[in-house]
Amino acid sequence: MQQFELSEEFVSHLEKLIQANNKEDVAKLVEPLHPADIAEIIEELDTEEAQYLFLLLDEEKAGDVLAEIEEDERQRFIDSFPPEVIAKRFVDNMDSDDAADLVGSMPNEQQQEVLSHMEDLEQAGDIVDLLHYDEDSAGGLMGKELVKVNENWTVLTCLRELSRQAENLDEIFYIYVVDDDNILKGRLSLKKMILTPTSTKIKNIYNPDVTYVTTDESAESVGRIMQKYDLVAIPVVDSIGRLVGRITIDDVVDVIREEAEKDYQMMSGISQDVESSDTVWDQTKARLPWLIIGLFGGMLAAYMISFYEADIALFPATAMFIPVITAMGGNVGIQSSAIVVKGLASNSFNTKNIFQSITKEISCATINACICSSIIFILSLFFNLNSYAMPITVTISLFIVIMFASIFGTAFPLLLNKMKIDPALATGPFITLTNDIIGLNIYLFTGKAILGWLM
Amino acid sequence: MQQFELSEEFVSHLEKLIQANNKEDVAKLVEPLHPADIAEIIEELDTEEAQYLFLLLDEEKAGDVLAEIEEDERQRFIDSFPPEVIAKRFVDNMDSDDAADLVGSMPNEQQQEVLSHMEDLEQAGDIVDLLHYDEDSAGGLMGKELVKVNENWTVLTCLRELSRQAENLDEIFYIYVVDDDNILKGRLSLKKMILTPTSTKIKNIYNPDVTYVTTDESAESVGRIMQKYDLVAIPVVDSIGRLVGRITIDDVVDVIREEAEKDYQMMSGISQDVESSDTVWDQTKARLPWLIIGLFGGMLAAYMISFYEADIALFPATAMFIPVITAMGGNVGIQSSAIVVKGLASNSFNTKNIFQSITKEISCATINACICSSIIFILSLFFNLNSYAMPITVTISLFIVIMFASIFGTAFPLLLNKMKIDPALATGPFITLTNDIIGLNIYLFTGKAILGWLM
Repeated sequence: MQQFELSEEFVSHLEKLIQANNKEDVAKLVEPLHPADIAEIIEELDTEEAQYLFLLLDEEKAGDVLAEIEEDERQRFIDSFPPEVIAKRFVDNMDSDDAADLVGSMPNEQQQEVLSHMEDLEQAGDIVDLLHYDEDSAGGLMGKELVKVNENWTVLTCLRELSRQAENLDEIFYIYVVDDDNILKGRLSLKKMILTPTSTKIKNIYNPDVTYVTTDESAESVGRIMQKYDLVAIPVVDSIGRLVGRITIDDVVDVIREEAEKDYQMMSGISQDVESSDTVWDQTKARLPWLIIGLFGGMLAAYMISFYEADIALFPATAMFIPVITAMGGNVGIQSSAIVVKGLASNSFNTKNIFQSITKEISCATINACICSSIIFILSLFFNLNSYAMPITVTISLFIVIMFASIFGTAFPLLLNKMKIDPALATGPFITLTNDIIGLNIYLFTGKAILGWLM
Repeated sequence: MQQFELSEEFVSHLEKLIQANNKEDVAKLVEPLHPADIAEIIEELDTEEAQYLFLLLDEEKAGDVLAEIEEDERQRFIDSFPPEVIAKRFVDNMDSDDAADLVGSMPNEQQQEVLSHMEDLEQAGDIVDLLHYDEDSAGGLMGKELVKVNENWTVLTCLRELSRQAENLDEIFYIYVVDDDNILKGRLSLKKMILTPTSTKIKNIYNPDVTYVTTDESAESVGRIMQKYDLVAIPVVDSIGRLVGRITIDDVVDVIREEAEKDYQMMSGISQDVESSDTVWDQTKARLPWLIIGLFGGMLAAYMISFYEADIALFPATAMFIPVITAMGGNVGIQSSAIVVKGLASNSFNTKNIFQSITKEISCATINACICSSIIFILSLFFNLNSYAMPITVTISLFIVIMFASIFGTAFPLLLNKMKIDPALATGPFITLTNDIIGLNIYLFTGKAILGWLM
């Protein structure tokens, strides 16, 4: 199967079939597709068409499709079905982690109603368990579906147990080994099991080197561990080491991507995750707050400049270089902060190299400041400024601004991190703003001193 | 095993043992660790200590450790060993994809020497094959290690073949099914194989729904497909459908993360991947080019302002609002571009919704522009400006600047994308620069018109 490409023709053909109530052809068109593809199609349909399509899918697939639909969109469908249908058609058949996410996103009352209509009581119990965990923790990410065997069993017992346990699982990646108290002891690969005589005890063949996380480990850190050790699944244990669930790499890939996107979004001055497909109102809500903060910052800058109004009237050329000073401060600050934020995210800082990084940043800033100041000195000589006072002012100010912005851009995210605030906040409009205001003051103050003195 | 935490104490203890030439204790300390942890330790050691440690590891592990070391660091070790040691100790024992990456990063001459010293001729052949592919394509990502079975075999033959083929594999995730011509027909899960009577023919139990990619598919697109379909491994076929390799999720997680980081880096105005651990020179090389471009842009802005010098001397208050105008243009532009770049990256644009996005962007811009302009009008009244001319100028200019920056910020990355240039370029200092210059012109021109007319 080559990947399915969603086309407008496909959607409009499907819509026509739905409107003609041609169940057979709709099913024939959609059934062979992967749940992720069906989810894409459903996102293009209106609520009634989507409902129609959902009810044609077999129960197993309907649950998988629902799990693949984006969260905002999903709400729309969920609200269009009665609690009983949600329970029996979807929640009963989804993986426990997806089911818990779905139920967790509902208002309390709806949650209770859906849970009370469920037929699979084991699944309902699992969901209630999973809902206790913070959604950004290992407990919130994990699913209850896993294959575990007792260390005292033989390979034969295991094979028999596997066929029973594996019924609900799409794929088996690892088999976990526990003792009689359900304490995680190690892992066993299917490969090992196939290649070992069936009378062997698990105790003698399992691998005790198993990397696990506890339920309260942060999602970010689970991602880091799975990436570092190249794991496809990781077992989750409670505080006394009992095996309670497992997290698969596909859920973690989403966390890793979202993590990277969050930093990107912060840097762009967007306060929540929006996409071009979101409504105008959602987009405005995410963007306006930063613009207003920027606006107040800009007015503060205007207020500072107003103190120098008389000087500007006297030396209007001062105004010419305001943009270059603010822009350079902003650019240098963002570069420095971005490097620190990335370093913090990949956990590559420790006490020893924080000091090293700052020293390095200062060296780097000095080189950049020297080169940029020399260039601006030469360029500003081409302006018809009648004296050396202005070029000297601009050169000295730019040097100080670059040095300041580098050091501030490095120190600020480190400080935020120390205060347990997301350091990525330092890369957004906030740092540009601070650099603008401080840079302007450095420039105008230097200008006043030098121009007053030289002219 | 809980995750290993690298500490300074651990490293200094290890260094002491190495200096005392205490092989036994060093081995005892390091052997139980995961290759990824040993790689972290080695990155902290100097070249000679690292060499010492490498030669103590067993061959299998030494190869795994080398594969985990960061590319820049790796070069340092590679250069410290003679080609014969590299070939026999490392390349012979690595996974073919990692081995090909390693050999591919060497100069041509060293490549030939290393290949000629290899003992595992099959591996050497695989490496030569893999080196043909572009490193950013599926062919460049894939490894040759995979488990494949012929559709005409029985489950029993398969199980026997598996024990042979699986010898070189850490884990088996999927078994691929091919016909007599090695054409990929489908996949088979280990689970299915365990649960089926051994005399059954593979033909009757395999799953023909297998998502694959061709060798020339881009790494980015492989990442997208594996994420979308939640795959742990994906088979790679050549242009006529023959199975030639497989890509595992851990390699793709790196691609996904690097992709997200690249956009982040572009936005921060850093032209290549640098980290706080890189040398001052590497950091300067990555950062200075954008600063110089910004500097020239700023000087262009200065040149534009110089045309209005006489006006500024007359109305020095004009200078006050320069920073707010440039900052707001920059902020709005980055927001718009970031949303488009993200949309393009997730492939969520098509002809129909490009038009929709632009319409939405204009609506959103109009709301933001109205609110921000109203705020600036009120705030600027508090300044002692003696007339309404300045507030009106600033208000009208800000409105136009926000509208322009939104539209330009949306259209520019779309245009770059159309021209097959990375649209992420539009989010960096470049867009801020353009918005600064155009915003300033809008502001000063409006100011001249209104102030000349009103006063």
